[in-house]
Amino acid sequence: MPEEQIRHYLTDKRNWGRWGDDDQRGTLNLLTHATRLAALSAVRSGEVLSLSRPIPTWVGSGNALPAQHYLKVAHSGGENLHSRPADERVAGSATDYYGLPYHGVATTHLDALSHVWDADGMYNGKSPEENITFDGVTFGGIEQWSTGIFARAVLLDVPAHRGVDYVEEGEPVTGAELEEVAREQGASIEPGDAICVYSGRERWQAAHPDLPYGRYPTLTNSSNGRQHFRKPGLDASCLTFIRDHDISALAWDMLDATPYDYDIPYAVHGAIHAYGLALIDNALLEELATACADRGHYDFLLVVAPLVVLGGTGSPVNPLAII
Amino acid sequence: MPEEQIRHYLTDKRNWGRWGDDDQRGTLNLLTHATRLAALSAVRSGEVLSLSRPIPTWVGSGNALPAQHYLKVAHSGGENLHSRPADERVAGSATDYYGLPYHGVATTHLDALSHVWDADGMYNGKSPEENITFDGVTFGGIEQWSTGIFARAVLLDVPAHRGVDYVEEGEPVTGAELEEVAREQGASIEPGDAICVYSGRERWQAAHPDLPYGRYPTLTNSSNGRQHFRKPGLDASCLTFIRDHDISALAWDMLDATPYDYDIPYAVHGAIHAYGLALIDNALLEELATACADRGHYDFLLVVAPLVVLGGTGSPVNPLAII
Amino acid sequence: MPEEQIRHYLTDKRNWGRWGDDDQRGTLNLLTHATRLAALSAVRSGEVLSLSRPIPTWVGSGNALPAQHYLKVAHSGGENLHSRPADERVAGSATDYYGLPYHGVATTHLDALSHVWDADGMYNGKSPEENITFDGVTFGGIEQWSTGIFARAVLLDVPAHRGVDYVEEGEPVTGAELEEVAREQGASIEPGDAICVYSGRERWQAAHPDLPYGRYPTLTNSSNGRQHFRKPGLDASCLTFIRDHDISALAWDMLDATPYDYDIPYAVHGAIHAYGLALIDNALLEELATACADRGHYDFLLVVAPLVVLGGTGSPVNPLAII
Amino acid sequence: MPEEQIRHYLTDKRNWGRWGDDDQRGTLNLLTHATRLAALSAVRSGEVLSLSRPIPTWVGSGNALPAQHYLKVAHSGGENLHSRPADERVAGSATDYYGLPYHGVATTHLDALSHVWDADGMYNGKSPEENITFDGVTFGGIEQWSTGIFARAVLLDVPAHRGVDYVEEGEPVTGAELEEVAREQGASIEPGDAICVYSGRERWQAAHPDLPYGRYPTLTNSSNGRQHFRKPGLDASCLTFIRDHDISALAWDMLDATPYDYDIPYAVHGAIHAYGLALIDNALLEELATACADRGHYDFLLVVAPLVVLGGTGSPVNPLAII
Repeated sequence: MPEEQIRHYLTDKRNWGRWGDDDQRGTLNLLTHATRLAALSAVRSGEVLSLSRPIPTWVGSGNALPAQHYLKVAHSGGENLHSRPADERVAGSATDYYGLPYHGVATTHLDALSHVWDADGMYNGKSPEENITFDGVTFGGIEQWSTGIFARAVLLDVPAHRGVDYVEEGEPVTGAELEEVAREQGASIEPGDAICVYSGRERWQAAHPDLPYGRYPTLTNSSNGRQHFRKPGLDASCLTFIRDHDISALAWDMLDATPYDYDIPYAVHGAIHAYGLALIDNALLEELATACADRGHYDFLLVVAPLVVLGGTGSPVNPLAII
Repeated sequence: MPEEQIRHYLTDKRNWGRWGDDDQRGTLNLLTHATRLAALSAVRSGEVLSLSRPIPTWVGSGNALPAQHYLKVAHSGGENLHSRPADERVAGSATDYYGLPYHGVATTHLDALSHVWDADGMYNGKSPEENITFDGVTFGGIEQWSTGIFARAVLLDVPAHRGVDYVEEGEPVTGAELEEVAREQGASIEPGDAICVYSGRERWQAAHPDLPYGRYPTLTNSSNGRQHFRKPGLDASCLTFIRDHDISALAWDMLDATPYDYDIPYAVHGAIHAYGLALIDNALLEELATACADRGHYDFLLVVAPLVVLGGTGSPVNPLAII
Repeated sequence: MPEEQIRHYLTDKRNWGRWGDDDQRGTLNLLTHATRLAALSAVRSGEVLSLSRPIPTWVGSGNALPAQHYLKVAHSGGENLHSRPADERVAGSATDYYGLPYHGVATTHLDALSHVWDADGMYNGKSPEENITFDGVTFGGIEQWSTGIFARAVLLDVPAHRGVDYVEEGEPVTGAELEEVAREQGASIEPGDAICVYSGRERWQAAHPDLPYGRYPTLTNSSNGRQHFRKPGLDASCLTFIRDHDISALAWDMLDATPYDYDIPYAVHGAIHAYGLALIDNALLEELATACADRGHYDFLLVVAPLVVLGGTGSPVNPLAII
Repeated sequence: MPEEQIRHYLTDKRNWGRWGDDDQRGTLNLLTHATRLAALSAVRSGEVLSLSRPIPTWVGSGNALPAQHYLKVAHSGGENLHSRPADERVAGSATDYYGLPYHGVATTHLDALSHVWDADGMYNGKSPEENITFDGVTFGGIEQWSTGIFARAVLLDVPAHRGVDYVEEGEPVTGAELEEVAREQGASIEPGDAICVYSGRERWQAAHPDLPYGRYPTLTNSSNGRQHFRKPGLDASCLTFIRDHDISALAWDMLDATPYDYDIPYAVHGAIHAYGLALIDNALLEELATACADRGHYDFLLVVAPLVVLGGTGSPVNPLAII
């Protein structure tokens, strides 16, 4: 797709002002009492699937900022948990601390509208200089979405369409391909629907154990490697699919294919500031893809409930698919 | 209620073995495909309410372990966000770090089955000495509940029943009173239902600005003050209500009334190890209580989606009520 | 002391430009090869005392931002440390994580020159708007003092001078009083010397167990209580002593007496931006005071070695007094 | 050196009981009032050098657990620092949070005696099962060394001895070589001295930009790669040098060469549990090596002041060399 069309979608077709000049809900305005009631019909069996990867606490070359998980134990005897035999056990409790640098390519999370901006500013043209503060953001914070996402959603299975196990580097998913996938699956997509784009990330990683997804190419360039990040995923042309179908939320396992050919700061992530899109990065979609294929139905109820952090730029989440 | 009856409920009526000796799901076993399909009927308007308090980042005497919220800004120009005028803006992104010591009385969170134990052990008789490790718990971790809670729920409004604004210290909510509230509200409670017990905590706090909820009485005793914690809330006799109705999950704004008269390590929290109960502490229930009273319906769909932390003792959550 | 004199010391007598317009070392410029060699003479016995309080990890009403201390254990057997009997022990290691929100009134720490500013700016007139960034400060960072403090120091024992156990609220230490203490102790103070002002803080705290030092007055006002902080300590007039004697560093157990009567944003802490003073807050001085009194010598070698955090606003430290 | 001799040094020549069965100070017992007074003579010029690397906050493939550095800004005007022009500036302060997972190969730090153990236990035969708790260690905590290290130290410059820029993988430094280096430098080493072994680490890293020091070989094995770590450094035979000279503390830039040929859990690090040695990992020694060569003196005063964390397994430090 020509760069000018990408730019057309990122600027002329923006949702700025669509829901008011001070709107902070973006595409979640598309979710209404009516769409929620309608979404109930997408539940057929009552089975629930979690679309969350485990919080990535492991340390190693594919997890640049490991999540922290530490425990404390309180013991009514006052001593160390392990200092008395089990047959003299007393009551106790275990608590933990989670340290979550959740943005990036490892944690399943929801981006808030304050997460990214380009030269024109944040969503709705707001100023990052004024709204990004040391105490949190004052526009587009995740608390604006405290009632979460409760929507009909459709899974789009790209590897099944391609007849492969996963999307490879150099062969990014395009907007036109998403249209084909939807048509092929017989999945109608209504305004306000969420979509889950499955690209086979976990299989890709298993097949490429030495290539961290979203990797820094070398130690040397690691401190300023944004343009060098390499990962398979979706092309900027997917913006057309998102905008034309008035998608409320996108959950994906692979993210923007990088590097990309266009001279734009963000590709699909640009939908955040352009459309006010709710983006759920690093979702775990393989089990859902299998379930959808088995059932022959690709729609379901999606529920996402972000932590209510005042002025937060997003939240780790555990999206639930009720099928 | 006599202490022996409390003990009867904490030991003789335990759910240990009920779902298998190695079961780690506890009362969430009561949630099935069928109960989830049935729960959809509790949605009437499609309105969603968040039952989460804001993540407590504020510093002061009522928040012993403040949550951490820190930001980073990346800027495609390489410089400080504020070092160039807005009309020369370049693209950028804001990310944040959440540090969450979420147990306690401030954060809305779900306790995992590994959170507490008494002399007999954890839920299902498992050993804390073996299962609580520096890398997380090996039994009853929150990942066992990765598919979350998707259940019909009933709100029980104690202040409305009492004709007061909030539950006071010295007047704890009892199991018998919960029965009265349910009867008075005309709310049938079915096995597997979740309940939300509203005690008016936010109003209590507003009326007692100098008394932190769940407070250490003095600086002197703060390091070993467990038995001294003071807070209004629910009496151990509520265990009977929970067990007799086969409740799957309890969300509450006020927690165990402390100190309590019984010589037991945990009162209502004992339902975690005794029954395998899913407990959602520090929920925000005032808006829901008002909505239920206005509508004349006290049941709704409750969705809780904990973060998938392998071996975690719980998770901060944003429970959603779809009414 | 009249407010105009305080203002005179905070503005007219500033050290701005004294060591160059871009100087970032402030009063540590007073430390030279020669002063370090001379400081060796202050070591008489070879005994070392630590002037650091324990890192404040405890949770309670007197420690608004507890330091975090969490452990991990790695075990060559791969299992839990406690899962095999001691007689089958294998090798292992224990590591920990320290989370340090060290500024404030609990942790012994060194303030960097970027820590505070007034309407005229930071030390040397630099701009906080430009120099305080999300990645750290770009002027006056603690790394400017990576070679630390190695200086002759003099203890000033205020309670001994007053014949009391500790300085009380409402009776702050003044600059004139410091002159008296020095004279009374027979301690000459040379340009470039450090001083340790002992006010008996630990005894004060022991005598006032329910009053946290530097406390928020109520829960209500805790979010915006700066002007309400209450603590005994030093008066703004101590600025005259610091400036007139050309002190290189001040270590103190009690900090600024607050609230103060002058309409200035910072009292003794104003010496940071006015003079470029190295300030070591919350030092533990009781043992040193006793040792000095016993020996009849109040001077010694002081060594302070801050962590080298690029762009940090200070560092927790363990100051050593070699007497 | 034959493995049996290594084992001889790790077991038969242990310092267990040497300073009492409950001693927790290990080789720092060798530091006395007398050695500290004597160490003053090693100061010739009064120049100070920091031996600390910057706290490693950068994110990338060579820093598995980045240190955290986050700022907060408080503003007497109550608003965002950047929301008003500089000519209307008000007073403010910047504070920061340091999150320090300091063990490993990136941060300059001091290991406490509780850090490692083998099948025979911790230093002095103490039990890790009993002494490693969720609240910190109860034996060999870093607070046992709160008075720090204040000692005569000798730099040993291995690359200068070899006539190379740095120690390579496959050519580890041996104990015999350290003897040669000392002899060649004409540096007498007295019981109780500290040594700083310079291996040219920073130059090695600059020459091998794609090989993180102490690296995991692949993504695949990163979760269990202890035996696979690869780094140039010191051979286990250096234990003989340490023990025979009764070294009080070892600061080094390169650590144990790994993997090693002996079937032992720790090589030079074994000196911690065997001798009670104070080990300062990841010191920055290049500037000191140059200064020593220029001056023709290899001895100096070393001061190390660990943070006083009760029950901590070590501390990040900024070692100072006063030459």
